[in-house]
Amino acid sequence: MNADQLFEQIRAKQSFLCVGLDTDFEKIPVHLRDSEYPLFEFNKAIIDATAAYTVAYKPNLAFYEVTGHRGMLEFEKTLLYIREQYPEILIVADAKRGDIGNTSEMYAKAFYQENWVDAVTLSPYMGRDTVDPFLNYEDKWAIILALTSNPSAADFEMQKLANGKYLYEQVLESSKEWGTTDNTMYVVGATRAEMLAGIREIVPDHFLLVPGVGAQGGSLEEVAKHGMNARCGLLVNSSRSIIYASSGDDFAEAAGREAAKMQAEMDALLTQYLPL
Amino acid sequence: MNADQLFEQIRAKQSFLCVGLDTDFEKIPVHLRDSEYPLFEFNKAIIDATAAYTVAYKPNLAFYEVTGHRGMLEFEKTLLYIREQYPEILIVADAKRGDIGNTSEMYAKAFYQENWVDAVTLSPYMGRDTVDPFLNYEDKWAIILALTSNPSAADFEMQKLANGKYLYEQVLESSKEWGTTDNTMYVVGATRAEMLAGIREIVPDHFLLVPGVGAQGGSLEEVAKHGMNARCGLLVNSSRSIIYASSGDDFAEAAGREAAKMQAEMDALLTQYLPL
Repeated sequence: MNADQLFEQIRAKQSFLCVGLDTDFEKIPVHLRDSEYPLFEFNKAIIDATAAYTVAYKPNLAFYEVTGHRGMLEFEKTLLYIREQYPEILIVADAKRGDIGNTSEMYAKAFYQENWVDAVTLSPYMGRDTVDPFLNYEDKWAIILALTSNPSAADFEMQKLANGKYLYEQVLESSKEWGTTDNTMYVVGATRAEMLAGIREIVPDHFLLVPGVGAQGGSLEEVAKHGMNARCGLLVNSSRSIIYASSGDDFAEAAGREAAKMQAEMDALLTQYLPL
Repeated sequence: MNADQLFEQIRAKQSFLCVGLDTDFEKIPVHLRDSEYPLFEFNKAIIDATAAYTVAYKPNLAFYEVTGHRGMLEFEKTLLYIREQYPEILIVADAKRGDIGNTSEMYAKAFYQENWVDAVTLSPYMGRDTVDPFLNYEDKWAIILALTSNPSAADFEMQKLANGKYLYEQVLESSKEWGTTDNTMYVVGATRAEMLAGIREIVPDHFLLVPGVGAQGGSLEEVAKHGMNARCGLLVNSSRSIIYASSGDDFAEAAGREAAKMQAEMDALLTQYLPL
């Protein structure tokens, strides 16, 4: 999927919602916990309830790896289900991988060779070698961590460099030359929405994956105001506030309602900033 | 395992060798490829042939993830085999994980709750939030990327900060306060051995995990000269030059011979710098 195709989907649904499938066995409804594939059963119901309002799903690998190879099987079943039922939806593996040389090639192969997902989040610490192998697959994406929403982003991401830039600005400056706006996105936390304007000066045309709206307190309006570009250029992620909207039997319906609410807000913002 | 226990093992074997289990299906002997668990069968033979010369094994996750949940099962079988047969040996999951909040906790749980491994490599880009959950498990380690051996380490790790330090120096300075010398190590590439002296000024007492000796061209002597401390403080990793020493039926014997050669060199260096 390239950027134009992603924008087409955003227009078709009037949504730039990404639903994070951070599926925690301890948090899913009790009645699902006895099933053979509890994480998958939960995801399936959440996906069916939210797909109409959603342009991307973002399973976070940690939540599947925690139960070992069994969890990875549930991860794979989830991906196959999305591919079969909702082939138009972008799948982001939130893996934050970052290695070099033949290892980085192995990671890219793991995610892309069998078309499991469309995009993988990557940590830029080790530099370009980390990202390059992910750019060699057509219609696939590298989503590079730039400025994250956590308190300790201040430790390194927001260190000022000798050249006057912040480290995260240098990451944007350097890495935007490695790929194109059709294969590179950036993670920018919504709790730093006021910094989006500056980020847009460096990467005006790239898509940004924005976590931190909802549970982490970021404002969707601020994100749209400072971050939207001519092709929307935003994927705003919500995880917990959607998938755990209810812990009862109505968990899927509740998730659908939350996703619909987000989509309605996004529809209004798209209409405001990008009138048809 | 704490640092003293690790040093005891180093003394017992007169070795600070870590064998990297970067087990690539395409590179293992042809006769193993038809077995039900080819990566595990290969690892088992390599482990039996090298354990006498080795204080740590470091499977790299990418090589198991590339075949999905089946590969993760082979990863788990490998870990269980080491635990059962060689319980004294440190297991490092070379995963280069790095996430925050409840996700980081999930990663730590994935690796440590069932005692799968003793240490996990971590990327520090997102700051302390990435590392903290790994420090909450007793006798377990966070191995933080500092200065890596790849060319593009220059992109960010070696950026000069406004405070006059390189980013990797800032990573060392900041993170050494998060844990102790009993639960924190650093990755420092052997191809940068000349920089080890400066690194030892910042973290004199920590263990360093040093990849890049062998296939990547780093010198063991230089690493020992600049990096060894009173408890050795070094784990030098070799992957390809040991595990792929032969592609024939004698692959395990050849790996054993290469590991023995490394151990003999390490024995000499330990005798030189840390006479008993």
